[in-house]
Amino acid sequence: MQILFDRIRKDGVIKSGKVLKVDSFLNHQMDIELLNEIGKEFKQRFADTEITKILTVEASGIGIACIAAQYFHVPVVFAKKSQSVNIDGEVYSTQIESYTHKRTYDVIVSKKFLNPQDKVLLIDDFLANGCALLGLIEIVASAGAQIAGVGIVVEKGFQSGGEVIREMGLRLESLAIVDGMNEKTGEIFFRGE
Amino acid sequence: MQILFDRIRKDGVIKSGKVLKVDSFLNHQMDIELLNEIGKEFKQRFADTEITKILTVEASGIGIACIAAQYFHVPVVFAKKSQSVNIDGEVYSTQIESYTHKRTYDVIVSKKFLNPQDKVLLIDDFLANGCALLGLIEIVASAGAQIAGVGIVVEKGFQSGGEVIREMGLRLESLAIVDGMNEKTGEIFFRGE
Repeated sequence: MQILFDRIRKDGVIKSGKVLKVDSFLNHQMDIELLNEIGKEFKQRFADTEITKILTVEASGIGIACIAAQYFHVPVVFAKKSQSVNIDGEVYSTQIESYTHKRTYDVIVSKKFLNPQDKVLLIDDFLANGCALLGLIEIVASAGAQIAGVGIVVEKGFQSGGEVIREMGLRLESLAIVDGMNEKTGEIFFRGE
Repeated sequence: MQILFDRIRKDGVIKSGKVLKVDSFLNHQMDIELLNEIGKEFKQRFADTEITKILTVEASGIGIACIAAQYFHVPVVFAKKSQSVNIDGEVYSTQIESYTHKRTYDVIVSKKFLNPQDKVLLIDDFLANGCALLGLIEIVASAGAQIAGVGIVVEKGFQSGGEVIREMGLRLESLAIVDGMNEKTGEIFFRGE
């Protein structure tokens, strides 16, 4: 997705430890026009796929999922971090290890919002080691629902998450796959470009 | 906003302790068509107001803020709970006490994304005691930016937050103000209806 490559090159910041910060337009401040282009692109890539629901995990996936959902005409459910007293007893839950936050947290989805008839599109901003996605996949499996596909904005191709997900036989569409970054020159290498 | 009143009556659930659950359409599963109506209504109510940015707090405000931002043509910034190693050093921060989660947490906004020229619309799903909003207001003040207004989907009129915000002289637009709920009969009373 060329406009995404261009934007990452323009406004992405490479940090030590192979960290790519895109917080000025994707996951802290959000450029809603760009999110709309991303939503349209997901719809185009999954145009032939039946989808009844979009599932993401808080927090940075929510905006992307909501904007994209307008093109799919389905509801969005977001998995919540840690138990809230406002959530009814019956939930699907799993543990996710956060690479960014260096900790493990519980995520939950109310059983009311996933059922065996659902064909679920998973959406998230980043795919690195895949822990968050594997958690969502486990939750969808617990509900007996089907995963229709996985839509990711930025995949770090040099980390294992993408390979793990593809080897599970899931259809993974990453709009930008970063295969390498040069911290000194600021160069970013995208797969297929 | 009549369609919101109707939807809360149809799908909202009254729980003991004056809890109103709207998680089937607003803050766990999200009905994107309804969110679009909410976004249009915010735009209509703030049509005469200059707004350069929408600020919300993770997690349940994000979807509403992003959908609404499409009508304002401005970026969304969401305040993040707790320090992430992926956020650069310079942040505005405050503490927010969560009524729902019965705990206090730090929220931060990168200084890059709020500046003294900004006219900020605060958006959130719920207003009860106002702690989350007061935190956002403090962050906007720290940045030397101006608060253009506050847009809330559901205000609990029997809790003090709305009064506190109005007494600060801020323009608060709550699309549904719940003045009372009857746990036994399921009745919900909206202000001005």
